[in-house]
Amino acid sequence: MPVIMDKIVSLCKRRGFIYQSSEIYGGFGSCYDYGPIGVELKNNIKRVWWKAMVQDRADVVGLDSAVIMSPKVWEASGHLTAGFADELVECKKCHHRFKADELKDKTKCPDCGGKLTIPKKFNLMMQTYVGPVQDEAAKTYLRAETCQGIYVNFENVLDTMRMKIPFGIAQIGKAFRNEITPGNFTFRTREFEQMEMQYFIKPGDNDKYFDEWKKQRMDWYLNNLGIKKENLRFREHSKEELPHYARKAVDIEYNYPFGFKEFEGIHDRGDWDLSNHAKHSGKDFSYFDEKTKKKYIPNVVETSGGVDRSALVVLLDAYHEEKVRKETRVVLKLDKDLAPIKVAVLPLVRNKEEIVKKAKEVYEILKPHFMSMYDDTGSIGRLYRRQDEIGTPFCITIDFDTLEDKKVTVRDRDTMKQDRVAIDKLIDFLQDKLAKR
Amino acid sequence: MPVIMDKIVSLCKRRGFIYQSSEIYGGFGSCYDYGPIGVELKNNIKRVWWKAMVQDRADVVGLDSAVIMSPKVWEASGHLTAGFADELVECKKCHHRFKADELKDKTKCPDCGGKLTIPKKFNLMMQTYVGPVQDEAAKTYLRAETCQGIYVNFENVLDTMRMKIPFGIAQIGKAFRNEITPGNFTFRTREFEQMEMQYFIKPGDNDKYFDEWKKQRMDWYLNNLGIKKENLRFREHSKEELPHYARKAVDIEYNYPFGFKEFEGIHDRGDWDLSNHAKHSGKDFSYFDEKTKKKYIPNVVETSGGVDRSALVVLLDAYHEEKVRKETRVVLKLDKDLAPIKVAVLPLVRNKEEIVKKAKEVYEILKPHFMSMYDDTGSIGRLYRRQDEIGTPFCITIDFDTLEDKKVTVRDRDTMKQDRVAIDKLIDFLQDKLAKR
Repeated sequence: MPVIMDKIVSLCKRRGFIYQSSEIYGGFGSCYDYGPIGVELKNNIKRVWWKAMVQDRADVVGLDSAVIMSPKVWEASGHLTAGFADELVECKKCHHRFKADELKDKTKCPDCGGKLTIPKKFNLMMQTYVGPVQDEAAKTYLRAETCQGIYVNFENVLDTMRMKIPFGIAQIGKAFRNEITPGNFTFRTREFEQMEMQYFIKPGDNDKYFDEWKKQRMDWYLNNLGIKKENLRFREHSKEELPHYARKAVDIEYNYPFGFKEFEGIHDRGDWDLSNHAKHSGKDFSYFDEKTKKKYIPNVVETSGGVDRSALVVLLDAYHEEKVRKETRVVLKLDKDLAPIKVAVLPLVRNKEEIVKKAKEVYEILKPHFMSMYDDTGSIGRLYRRQDEIGTPFCITIDFDTLEDKKVTVRDRDTMKQDRVAIDKLIDFLQDKLAKR
Repeated sequence: MPVIMDKIVSLCKRRGFIYQSSEIYGGFGSCYDYGPIGVELKNNIKRVWWKAMVQDRADVVGLDSAVIMSPKVWEASGHLTAGFADELVECKKCHHRFKADELKDKTKCPDCGGKLTIPKKFNLMMQTYVGPVQDEAAKTYLRAETCQGIYVNFENVLDTMRMKIPFGIAQIGKAFRNEITPGNFTFRTREFEQMEMQYFIKPGDNDKYFDEWKKQRMDWYLNNLGIKKENLRFREHSKEELPHYARKAVDIEYNYPFGFKEFEGIHDRGDWDLSNHAKHSGKDFSYFDEKTKKKYIPNVVETSGGVDRSALVVLLDAYHEEKVRKETRVVLKLDKDLAPIKVAVLPLVRNKEEIVKKAKEVYEILKPHFMSMYDDTGSIGRLYRRQDEIGTPFCITIDFDTLEDKKVTVRDRDTMKQDRVAIDKLIDFLQDKLAKR
């Protein structure tokens, strides 16, 4: 693993961002748990996405569909057939399995040198059983993508929200894929959280809206998540790479420590999903266009990103080391909107009762207004380092002068510049500094 | 189903709160999807809970653990053994299954009159397989409660966040239970979202913190969710009812149309979970008390509520019918914090271009600040009725006078009182009205 990845994994564990799932039992299946700092980061990413994609747009509404759906959904979508499966080969000797297309030498097992079987399809969907009888009738799957919950609710949303094409439905939620080769920390996991939006359009408008959403999503990563421009790029899929549902696909790629790889996908899904659900359900999903007085099956442009991957990219992109008085300062230069803790309140010394008491008072004042933290479990230098490592934009110290002049020191994470601010002006001061410009 | 439940189910579908999952395929397994209005209600409930339980408390931090964990977690927690199973009997003729303790006549099948088997244990956990080989080694379960993700991270959180007992860890997330008898709309479903908090305490302090959390949680339902006092009560579980992990359990019950039933549970789990995980993982979860210089296994007081059940209760409790000019007005008198849409912008007439244009301008002004909706697809009376039915606190109408005096009419949902407000004062006016007092 590249050095920077090691550093991020270690910081994530050390500072309460991300822990290995079921760690006390030796971990499990490429799943991760978000600690107290990580869950705030994820919640902020979701909130910022929801505001840009739902609240700020007249033409997009939200949805939250169930993880477990009828298996018929996955028959219709093509996920149970060849379209959503990997080709695996198995070693006849050690029985290890490998992705066929990742093997350089396809004649023998890379682990033991044994002979390999011919490739067999392995479906990525995780199955479960619903209802008291565990037989085929009750067998279904954990969703492998949130967007199918959007398609099966297309008509419900259209009718109850009186939408007119073009319009979109956005959703944030968990999805599950039985990946053969998960890895690179939280980059590819078996359980993950998607942020998807399906934009329903008139057939023929595909390229126009495809280009529009490409631009919108790139702008969101630059302006809302604050990702560095040089670390993002577009990559169009070749015909051979296209997923089974897509007519066209462009990835926004990020420059991870392991190279430029997928971050978000923008897909022209045509009428693949609605047509297939119409066929399988016997419903008619054609849309009556009031202007042209004609009916058509809407086409879809999809934007498909992830919460976990966004969190990983945000951490990688914000990670910064600098020399300060011959010591290395590690600081996460997070966009203020995304910072898990907005302000930390730190007593300059912890063995003076009046100072600790005053610091706790200031913390109580700020807490209802900002996600705040109080910390007195170390020297002030150590307390600053901790907050720098979790990207807290402002640290407030209470010192002996505070007891006299009722002012505190506010330290800026990025510039390390310090301001003296009156306690009764603190909320306004911070609200102004934290406001998005 | 009681009349009021029918009305709520119908309103939920009609207004975009809740749809049956996989409805186009005939529905599936007691799962539900939240529509554009419902997802906003759920997000508001979650936000209000997180603020009260995490942001506003110095002693509680958040967590977001994975749905899929090592099966060893569920061996240790007792969920795979008798503790988390229902007794089922099967009809030898029609093969329908029934909960043994729900059958009045235990000698014959209530469906066909056939003979019944003796009761057999049926486990409520949903299983799945992780990894490329579907055999016993890869078998695991979807979590049946979010709190196990908290216990297995107890040490991680304690260390990385430098917590001191007493402290709590709070989590919101999906859980899955293969309920035999789901029902009453979203009251009991197989997929649901929990809001749980585990408070780690010194053994012996159990009763003190149990009583404190009982009060805190009841206050939250009264003050933050705005539930009517007469519809809530406590009920202590008898010894026979206690879940396998609990030493004591008190439910907060709500007066549903089908009677007083469970809403949230407060449980004294003693050291059941940490001791069992210590035993199964070989780790030592004892805590060193700096004051007494003694070690102990922390005890736990748990508060366990649900997002879906909160949404259902909020809808039932806010539902209100009243006679206005001989017509029935249906209005959801939701707490303003919970209202999915805070403000709707409605042109008085939709066939006057200037008015529609001005209304859209006002909508654009408000949208970045409040979850807003623009609607011009009906007469003003119908538009008001729609907003009343989703509990929108304020409706703004743009009329001919607006074009002259640059003022709009703001209608209050509850009083139906109307104010004329200047467009450039609108944001301040609404922010003030929507502020929590």
